Amino acid sequence: MQARRKKGERERIVILGSGWAGYALAQTIKPSKASRVLISPRSHFVFTPLLASTTVGTLEFRASIEPVRRLGLDEFHQAWASDIDFATKTIRLEANTMSDTAGTQTSTLRGPAKGPEFSITYDTLVIAVGCYSQTFGTEGVAQHANFLRDVGDARAIRLKVLTAFEKADLPSATDAQRAELLHFAIVGGGPTGIEFAAELHDLVHEDLAKLYPALMRFVRVTVYDIAPKVLPMFDQALASYAMDLFRRQGIEVKTEHSLQSIRRTDDGILKLRLKGHDAEVGAGLLVWSTGLMQNPLVARLLRQDIPGLGRIVEDDRTGGITTDGAMRVLTRPVGGGAPVPLPDVYAIGDCTVQVAHRLPATAQVASQQATWLGKRINSGNANADGEFIFRNWGAMAYLGSKRAIHQNGADGLRGWPAWILWRTAYLTKSMSWRNKLKIPLQWLITALFGRDISRF
Amino acid sequence: MQARRKKGERERIVILGSGWAGYALAQTIKPSKASRVLISPRSHFVFTPLLASTTVGTLEFRASIEPVRRLGLDEFHQAWASDIDFATKTIRLEANTMSDTAGTQTSTLRGPAKGPEFSITYDTLVIAVGCYSQTFGTEGVAQHANFLRDVGDARAIRLKVLTAFEKADLPSATDAQRAELLHFAIVGGGPTGIEFAAELHDLVHEDLAKLYPALMRFVRVTVYDIAPKVLPMFDQALASYAMDLFRRQGIEVKTEHSLQSIRRTDDGILKLRLKGHDAEVGAGLLVWSTGLMQNPLVARLLRQDIPGLGRIVEDDRTGGITTDGAMRVLTRPVGGGAPVPLPDVYAIGDCTVQVAHRLPATAQVASQQATWLGKRINSGNANADGEFIFRNWGAMAYLGSKRAIHQNGADGLRGWPAWILWRTAYLTKSMSWRNKLKIPLQWLITALFGRDISRF
Repeated sequence: MQARRKKGERERIVILGSGWAGYALAQTIKPSKASRVLISPRSHFVFTPLLASTTVGTLEFRASIEPVRRLGLDEFHQAWASDIDFATKTIRLEANTMSDTAGTQTSTLRGPAKGPEFSITYDTLVIAVGCYSQTFGTEGVAQHANFLRDVGDARAIRLKVLTAFEKADLPSATDAQRAELLHFAIVGGGPTGIEFAAELHDLVHEDLAKLYPALMRFVRVTVYDIAPKVLPMFDQALASYAMDLFRRQGIEVKTEHSLQSIRRTDDGILKLRLKGHDAEVGAGLLVWSTGLMQNPLVARLLRQDIPGLGRIVEDDRTGGITTDGAMRVLTRPVGGGAPVPLPDVYAIGDCTVQVAHRLPATAQVASQQATWLGKRINSGNANADGEFIFRNWGAMAYLGSKRAIHQNGADGLRGWPAWILWRTAYLTKSMSWRNKLKIPLQWLITALFGRDISRF
Repeated sequence: MQARRKKGERERIVILGSGWAGYALAQTIKPSKASRVLISPRSHFVFTPLLASTTVGTLEFRASIEPVRRLGLDEFHQAWASDIDFATKTIRLEANTMSDTAGTQTSTLRGPAKGPEFSITYDTLVIAVGCYSQTFGTEGVAQHANFLRDVGDARAIRLKVLTAFEKADLPSATDAQRAELLHFAIVGGGPTGIEFAAELHDLVHEDLAKLYPALMRFVRVTVYDIAPKVLPMFDQALASYAMDLFRRQGIEVKTEHSLQSIRRTDDGILKLRLKGHDAEVGAGLLVWSTGLMQNPLVARLLRQDIPGLGRIVEDDRTGGITTDGAMRVLTRPVGGGAPVPLPDVYAIGDCTVQVAHRLPATAQVASQQATWLGKRINSGNANADGEFIFRNWGAMAYLGSKRAIHQNGADGLRGWPAWILWRTAYLTKSMSWRNKLKIPLQWLITALFGRDISRF
């Protein structure tokens, strides 16, 4: 398990994943300190907080992504890692050669077509593969629901919304069909679901209302959540403010509702069956934004026997990879015993749980872990003991009509000032100068001319 | 055949098509003068001269389109016209309910799925359905070639180019595969083919060269044309300048070459067979930009018997609809005789030929005809005799490396000044204020940061 690099050669760091963790890490590691190799089935990083804005045309799709090639990496392979041999420090990859990776819904899921396979080696490995969407086995969700995690998902949602209006406007449509087509359902009352509902409301009432005035009486937006309260990360005052605002905007929030199944009729209308309700609910779109499940690679790694070390310690609650405070992957001998770090292997982001303190699977945690680990790699002391401390920047959610909420510890901000903060914060955090310039220009154009309504 | 509208009601003008002719006409007709009804399988107008720029990321896709709904039409139906009954002034429509119309290649071609059908009536009808791409029955072209006529085509080409580089960069690829994947072939030496080759050259040498330096030696761009000379609308001096510049840029132009067939291997490489050549040529992409054929609706209308009037006069050379100088559709009794205008039916653009002077099937002709007819409709004298006079604004072509050519009568302009003229002219002609603002901002961002290389 010895590093094979020649004297004077830079350490070869392989990063699996181009999300908040992997991308930020590749950006933090100095090219002079290490040779950076990135592996991801996607050719880009997605700035997830702006994804909902791209579905409604406030921003162009590209404003929410950063091509990883722009990082000036030593190597990038658009591929899935299918196996890792920790003894020989070798990773088996399967290339993702699907041409339309950015435009297809849930584009990182492996298709039936198998790409060419090849292997690469590492000196140091960082696993940052993130999570997949969890459907809890709900019938029909994988086939008929839309997710909102990648830019291809955003585009698929956008086309469905705009096409629903066009279909409902056909003289051949009945009023009953119109009401079903223009019912937009969202499952999951976290920030993603709530923000999408808010952005959709703005699109409908500020832009589409002018183009399809006769259809406005049919439009409904409903957020379903299984819990008794949405936006659990906000205190009661802010959550109530959000619910009041939603009520005034006509967005319905149905808590303690759980989807049992979804099917699609021949004319393309979705039929939702909710637990404990007999009648099906028709909808033109269902956005599913609840729950995460582990990446198949993680499950495979956890079952793998590592000679002399046992197995990687699985987190019981999430099924994720357990790490110590320095983000070193922990292993435990098969017979039991004290956990030992797996040499030269780190893991960060949603696919991990730190033994000492359990952190939420959020972009904030992932990117702070990446920066922390990247700096230690730059200093050459990544392998030393250490304790990552998470600094909570607070939570934000856009609520529609230029209103937002922001929670920071006990402090809350709401309404228009919180919306300004929302925009400023995300503009500051967006990754490239290109997007830092493009985003405000696109906001300006939207302010002047309205949202883009081209079916693209 | 009497108009059924009540006294004081505006005339109901139905326009078939949202291209250069149909869109410009809908824009010219004053809403106070007539009720404007637009029918098109596309929800947008495409500003075709900027399409090649969107394939390479100099511009966003949306900068090349204008959603027709923004025209504030009285009615818009996203549909194909499948039949017209001139006696009852009724048009049979089939809705285009495919959700991804803007994103699919050759999106206006009718798919196998049939949309709902319905009928509408007109007081005045303007046929502006344009042409389809002509493949001359060349084997494999319809299946494996890319066209460049709509924004969905542009996106499909873009994804193929960028994916070809990503595939060629895989460690599992051989050098022979790399050379085939990175050979970009264009059939057709008109402005579209030449400009695409030029833009592709710029993308490769100004942007991709930095990201894939090791692949540069494999890249080839070839333009094939059956004629002995490309860019036939330019004089010899300008065409020679273009060929010299292409040679210096490493773009090969093969005149008097004709494609016999094209097939696709299992690993996604295209194999081109040229007439009179034994060996097949490998390529990662083939862009087909040569030839037009009539829209199926036109063929159907020409075969239709119109009670009391005979049939619409077909143009022998193009198979198009013959009109008089006032763009009235001409009919001729079945036994023969003098052509007579079909009451209240006009035709403009690529699907028509004027009896008195044959004009080229270009955007210039179509949009000038639309403006001319629109103004006559506004004045209420569309049905009077008249003679449309085409004013040739000249021809332009971008050649790469910030060089262009411009021909206006005997005057020619070339090089960098012609490129400035190219940009200024198309910016001036772009349809909406939104795009007039967006396009220079996107040029600025490209100048500052390079072309967008995200696979989107």
